[in-house]
Amino acid sequence: MLKLFYAPGTCALASRIALEEAGADYEIARLNFAESEQRSAEFLRINPKGRVPALVTDRGVLTETPAILIYVAQAFPAANLAMLDDAYEFARLQAFNAYIASTVHVNHAHGRRGARWANQQSSFDDMKSKVAETMAASMRMIELDFFEGPWVMGEQYTVADGYLYTMSSWLAGDGVDINEFPILKDHFERMSARPAVQRVLADI
Amino acid sequence: MLKLFYAPGTCALASRIALEEAGADYEIARLNFAESEQRSAEFLRINPKGRVPALVTDRGVLTETPAILIYVAQAFPAANLAMLDDAYEFARLQAFNAYIASTVHVNHAHGRRGARWANQQSSFDDMKSKVAETMAASMRMIELDFFEGPWVMGEQYTVADGYLYTMSSWLAGDGVDINEFPILKDHFERMSARPAVQRVLADI
Repeated sequence: MLKLFYAPGTCALASRIALEEAGADYEIARLNFAESEQRSAEFLRINPKGRVPALVTDRGVLTETPAILIYVAQAFPAANLAMLDDAYEFARLQAFNAYIASTVHVNHAHGRRGARWANQQSSFDDMKSKVAETMAASMRMIELDFFEGPWVMGEQYTVADGYLYTMSSWLAGDGVDINEFPILKDHFERMSARPAVQRVLADI
Repeated sequence: MLKLFYAPGTCALASRIALEEAGADYEIARLNFAESEQRSAEFLRINPKGRVPALVTDRGVLTETPAILIYVAQAFPAANLAMLDDAYEFARLQAFNAYIASTVHVNHAHGRRGARWANQQSSFDDMKSKVAETMAASMRMIELDFFEGPWVMGEQYTVADGYLYTMSSWLAGDGVDINEFPILKDHFERMSARPAVQRVLADI
């Protein structure tokens, strides 16, 4: 059975939503980030990066949200969570996920994880003060340039929707009012109402 | 015909190597970053992100290196540049590419692009001073934990090899001595000798 290493408030939420939407048989292993369990020797043997998500499969451990999301879509093709049969459409989906991973999530991380990239408290404070601006800019680009509607990629609901939902769930904490983005707000509300997301929210 | 928007010294090198390895018929459109051509109104209509790579296909524009690399592998399957028929192996490849995009490249970017995430010169200086440390740490993790050998993913040469090569090519400028990483140094030298890479290097 698949096992997802998970922590509330992290991007592992996107992988969990994908597993729920896929109807996968999986279990959750929660890590307590407040106690730095992601840096424990035990977990570092599973994922040397010390991060979640990490998905334990019968063949080995997979990491990185964009990789896990597509893996879930490919492992459960009946759920139709990605455009798997069209290289161009698949690349569009991959580009969206990559933008979230390497731009949006990175913007967010500067609010709390500045020590990854600098050493001085003044730098951390400076980075933190810019998060609302950078998150708003990247979400505006998604709303104006990438979001097709009614779902991220268009008519087909995909793993990108749970990933975008995860970013939207961070906005208030990052000082961004989702009401500035009516399309993303509507998407967030429709996502929240999906049975798979409801099941996850009931068991954070 | 495919057209790759490209600039020397950027991660677009990885996409170009993939296109060469694939034997693709493509043309190069160079952007002059010193003159900020990537922020021109003309280019922003092609890629609103103002970044390279951007790959113009007959169906539209693709962005983000991890997406473009897999697109090239899928569009030219005879070149065998990815494990396309095994969801787990494909996810391992995707995880490697995602780690480069969202961790290694992001570490590097803090040396010159600190203004993306902060506002003060003191923060930029602080970030820049940490790049050698973060790049060395991520390359060490690749050498010890992810690199299978003789290529990144094992026996099969994949698009991940050109992506790792691109990161290795940045190390000297980031203050990291590649001699600290004998496996990566050997990989870099074998990559440099490949005919496809030689063709790219002859036409930077």
